[in-house]
Amino acid sequence: MTESKSTNIILFSGDYDKAMAAYIIANGAAAYDHKVTVFHTFWGLNALRKDGKVEAQKGMLEKMFGKMMPRGADKMGLSNMNMAGLGPKMIKKVMKKHNTSTVPELIEMAQMQDVNLVACQMTVDLLGFKKEELLDDITYAGVAAYLGEAEDGNVSLFI
Amino acid sequence: MTESKSTNIILFSGDYDKAMAAYIIANGAAAYDHKVTVFHTFWGLNALRKDGKVEAQKGMLEKMFGKMMPRGADKMGLSNMNMAGLGPKMIKKVMKKHNTSTVPELIEMAQMQDVNLVACQMTVDLLGFKKEELLDDITYAGVAAYLGEAEDGNVSLFI
Amino acid sequence: MTESKSTNIILFSGDYDKAMAAYIIANGAAAYDHKVTVFHTFWGLNALRKDGKVEAQKGMLEKMFGKMMPRGADKMGLSNMNMAGLGPKMIKKVMKKHNTSTVPELIEMAQMQDVNLVACQMTVDLLGFKKEELLDDITYAGVAAYLGEAEDGNVSLFI
Repeated sequence: MTESKSTNIILFSGDYDKAMAAYIIANGAAAYDHKVTVFHTFWGLNALRKDGKVEAQKGMLEKMFGKMMPRGADKMGLSNMNMAGLGPKMIKKVMKKHNTSTVPELIEMAQMQDVNLVACQMTVDLLGFKKEELLDDITYAGVAAYLGEAEDGNVSLFI
Repeated sequence: MTESKSTNIILFSGDYDKAMAAYIIANGAAAYDHKVTVFHTFWGLNALRKDGKVEAQKGMLEKMFGKMMPRGADKMGLSNMNMAGLGPKMIKKVMKKHNTSTVPELIEMAQMQDVNLVACQMTVDLLGFKKEELLDDITYAGVAAYLGEAEDGNVSLFI
Repeated sequence: MTESKSTNIILFSGDYDKAMAAYIIANGAAAYDHKVTVFHTFWGLNALRKDGKVEAQKGMLEKMFGKMMPRGADKMGLSNMNMAGLGPKMIKKVMKKHNTSTVPELIEMAQMQDVNLVACQMTVDLLGFKKEELLDDITYAGVAAYLGEAEDGNVSLFI
């Protein structure tokens, strides 16, 4: 019996470029038969948001957070050279030219490769996300579950 | 004999939300009997500052750094949606509503759980911090000490 | 036979202070006989740029990226307290006072210690860098090569 290797990524950032790096590594590791988990916390949860507006019962603060945060990976900004939204447009233009997969495509690919997409329950509650706003087929868990995987893992990254 | 697992976190960031993530993981790992070290370097040192003004002999540049940097975790900004200080207020409001521990509380909890809080000596010197400005019961060490722990560790993160 | 330990750092950030942290860890690990790789991706590639202007045939978008991004580590900003370029000047002043190595010096030291400096081929293409613009004696590789090293490594960090 050969034990499979494992890669555990915490995606904390809500930046398009960092989510792209996270999902390229996740897909690469899955292709090499790693057991892969991407644990989305804080702003990284935005990558899991569905892109349309979803009706959900919320308090006022949660509504404000919901409005101000990007709905899905495609709407996220860049960590660098964002230039009020011009940067993401430029990056997407060169990505298209080079036939590079977009972040929503990389997430879909990860789901097809059985990468475990986890939403951090604590920050889901804190930022007031409702399950119907986030992608289907994801799991909800806490830091204990993350540590359970990562402590025996091979590659652990905080992005 | 079972060897205990270990988690080694470098806290580089001076953002409230990132410090919160770091200390939630640190406390979680300590609860699972990991040997845990949080190695504070650069802006992460601000999490270790005492919150009042502390008199200390300093050069002019060091005084300027000291003035411009937040005094303690409670005064740090957010990595995202900081909105000139409104973001941290909003986050703290929802944290209170959800009974989530604040970062200063998480740090205290970590100290009670014997998490090893380390201040990077090189950046302490560089940014001109004096020992009397930082929390008591922390240790001062360099990259060699960090590597000594992390190279045999289970989870290593740069936050 | 004792197998050597390994440290694998992904340098994603284009910030001076983060590159400094990455290279201090890389040099420390190399001094402790680790096999060390620094894998530069996205904005981290700027650390590998030569500092003069290099003539290279490029499309318009690539030219714009090239112009807007810093030419070499010495021209990078800070992740915190950048203050329109004043922060880097202040940091470099205290670094000089404390005899701390600059980032270009740390990179040179890493090359002398046989740290493997890798440029991520995908983001080199995406951002339109030409080999003649980047440091000599670096290698070009993809996520597969990174994972091949990191999965058996001891310390893996995303900076």
